[in-house]
Amino acid sequence: MSKLLIRSMVLPMTGQDVFYPQGEIAIENDRIVSVGAQGSVPARFIPDRILELPNDVVMPGLINTHTHAAMTLLRSYADDLPLMPWLNEKVWPFEEKLTEEDIYWGTALALCEMIRSGTTTMLDMYLSMDQVAEAVLKAGTRAVLSRGLVGNNPNGNRALAENIELVRCYHGAGNGRVSIMFGPHAPYTCGAEYLQRVKVEADRLGVGIHIHVAETIDEIKNIGEQYGKTPVQWLDGLGFFGGHVVAAHCVHLTPEDMDILASRHVCVAHNAESNMKLSSGTAPITELSAKGVVIGLGTDSASSNNNLDLFGEMRSVAFQQKLKVGSTVLPAYEVLEMATLGGAQTLGLEDVGMLAPGFKADIITIDMAQPHFYPRFSIPAHLVYVAHAGDVRTVMVDGKIIMEERKLLTMDADKVCQEVETRAKRISAELNG
Amino acid sequence: MSKLLIRSMVLPMTGQDVFYPQGEIAIENDRIVSVGAQGSVPARFIPDRILELPNDVVMPGLINTHTHAAMTLLRSYADDLPLMPWLNEKVWPFEEKLTEEDIYWGTALALCEMIRSGTTTMLDMYLSMDQVAEAVLKAGTRAVLSRGLVGNNPNGNRALAENIELVRCYHGAGNGRVSIMFGPHAPYTCGAEYLQRVKVEADRLGVGIHIHVAETIDEIKNIGEQYGKTPVQWLDGLGFFGGHVVAAHCVHLTPEDMDILASRHVCVAHNAESNMKLSSGTAPITELSAKGVVIGLGTDSASSNNNLDLFGEMRSVAFQQKLKVGSTVLPAYEVLEMATLGGAQTLGLEDVGMLAPGFKADIITIDMAQPHFYPRFSIPAHLVYVAHAGDVRTVMVDGKIIMEERKLLTMDADKVCQEVETRAKRISAELNG
Repeated sequence: MSKLLIRSMVLPMTGQDVFYPQGEIAIENDRIVSVGAQGSVPARFIPDRILELPNDVVMPGLINTHTHAAMTLLRSYADDLPLMPWLNEKVWPFEEKLTEEDIYWGTALALCEMIRSGTTTMLDMYLSMDQVAEAVLKAGTRAVLSRGLVGNNPNGNRALAENIELVRCYHGAGNGRVSIMFGPHAPYTCGAEYLQRVKVEADRLGVGIHIHVAETIDEIKNIGEQYGKTPVQWLDGLGFFGGHVVAAHCVHLTPEDMDILASRHVCVAHNAESNMKLSSGTAPITELSAKGVVIGLGTDSASSNNNLDLFGEMRSVAFQQKLKVGSTVLPAYEVLEMATLGGAQTLGLEDVGMLAPGFKADIITIDMAQPHFYPRFSIPAHLVYVAHAGDVRTVMVDGKIIMEERKLLTMDADKVCQEVETRAKRISAELNG
Repeated sequence: MSKLLIRSMVLPMTGQDVFYPQGEIAIENDRIVSVGAQGSVPARFIPDRILELPNDVVMPGLINTHTHAAMTLLRSYADDLPLMPWLNEKVWPFEEKLTEEDIYWGTALALCEMIRSGTTTMLDMYLSMDQVAEAVLKAGTRAVLSRGLVGNNPNGNRALAENIELVRCYHGAGNGRVSIMFGPHAPYTCGAEYLQRVKVEADRLGVGIHIHVAETIDEIKNIGEQYGKTPVQWLDGLGFFGGHVVAAHCVHLTPEDMDILASRHVCVAHNAESNMKLSSGTAPITELSAKGVVIGLGTDSASSNNNLDLFGEMRSVAFQQKLKVGSTVLPAYEVLEMATLGGAQTLGLEDVGMLAPGFKADIITIDMAQPHFYPRFSIPAHLVYVAHAGDVRTVMVDGKIIMEERKLLTMDADKVCQEVETRAKRISAELNG
């Protein structure tokens, strides 16, 4: 039994007007007991420890709804290239060389960076996902993991079998910190029959599906030529939607596509910075949100971003939509909701994304006693338009503190950095002589 | 006499391929003596102090070419509003209430934030610029200051007299750390005769001019209706260009406008994040750069950004251009150049913006021993696409260290924060009851 009380400013993300300038939050084991103004904690709650952080804002941990974590190994390896040469000549040859151990360490590095920037949960898609699961269990974060499935590849069937095995071995692992989805890569890399098999398996096992949809104009052209439909309409025609589906990107949508996503309750993982850096386009987030589509935010991989910082991502999400639609759209609180509660809903996690009694204690604190956070007119505006990764002081997941005073408690960051440096440079040397 | 040697990675910004993974830089008083690989320092250079920072990158301090520093007082006071209500109902009534002391403290806060995010020089435009100059002298940074001149206001003549007085009192102050420009606000707030008078005074005193140009579509319409020309062509017709002119924003330009800016050697201060947040548009930076226009980067004020972090700004500059033009434009090194050497050229400062013998010692160090900076494939890509304000460890201006291990040495940050908090809340209370 462990009981913790945090006294600080509290932004529980339970409603636009809910903020406690002098608040407190009580945590027992892995769950939140109470949230409110100071003095609101039940008298029977006797904490083992009190964290006094009067100049910090406590808020829900951020949720990254679309990552390929192990690709930190490719960070700043190849930038400023056209999409296809970037993939063909740089990313794919590098990935060919990755060992299972590389993927473990690359993911470990991603998790170190995520924790340090206040991200407590990710939805990941990659290969060797057992390695990814082990890194998550070690780091103490929360994750939903999907095996990337390229149906058109010779190993498509083996990969699907691995995803099924992943559900068996890791769904619910680590006191529920790890759960599993299926990860069919995209409409242009998986055929109809393959996607339908994935859907059958997902329904049978009661887990969701994570897929890239409508990321680039080339995809729209390609699917249009092949099937005479948009990617969304083609997937819908296959009966692919209806269960829990996370569609990453959704940059290029028709109004009919948006209506389908809304009516089928498809959740959208929006990746503003990756979409900008790769020149993919501006996703219609303002319209999707108006139609009631649940939206979460993602960084995509560190090879197209090049960091995994959701604070920077929130700024970019707001700025990109304001640039396209107008200065009034996506006000700060709405963006914060996408990064917390919207992310939780996107991932199908019912007890994270808000600070409320009974919810999991996935909590971060932000050090507001810094010049860039003065004056203190609006905490949501500060968090979206001002904050950066380095402002996170404390991170707790499932009731356990995994970063305190910016020191990682579950990971040896220096060792992880050196492992990745050695492994990434080994691969680069093999490829570039 | 003070002699300092820094041993670290060195990115001198003297050429795309110049980087010393194990470098050193020697500084004597306010100037750089030598830059190179370890062992390159002249034998006669006996340092008083050696800074061993093997995991830091040393680079030139960043240069913010367009700010209204004191407007930190309005940070997160009003966001997500349409432009005119934001100005009419929020910004201007707030500014009406500012005292000279408020402007001193608001600027001091901006300088604390700038130093902490690696900015060593700013080009500022506001009022009570003697207060701004005093804050800069105290903070130990470098600045070019311009009195904002609204020719159409009743106080237009008095403001111009203040700007002339500012040249007399502060041009060259602080061992040359402070210099002065004229600050006519914009073509839509100053008439032809007034702008011509400003130009005459600037020429007479041998200083430059800092002006907003072509920021919004409304300005283009307004000037078009009034004069039948674009703002750039109208200014050119007045004989306004030809000396040293910094044109802030330049979002909406015709090809002819761009040719005029290039042929008249007008420098452009680009404000990507402010242009996005206010939905002003995407400035044609890629085209301007191709035409040889010198470009510097600016944050604009903290009320339309809402921070003064040029690392975030560099990311946004690259992302916004890639989104509009393509993934290959504005590669990382080019963006870094805009934030350093381009900024120096924009401000007319000939001995900052690079690390080279004889240049002023305006230097920052970035702590690269952090998970988000691994693996180390490309330092420029890391600095533009990954770094954030909190990664700056050391800041030196004019040979004096003004931040070390993230501690400000010239400013009492806590006092500044509290002063601004009190003053901003006082004004807000007066306005909102």
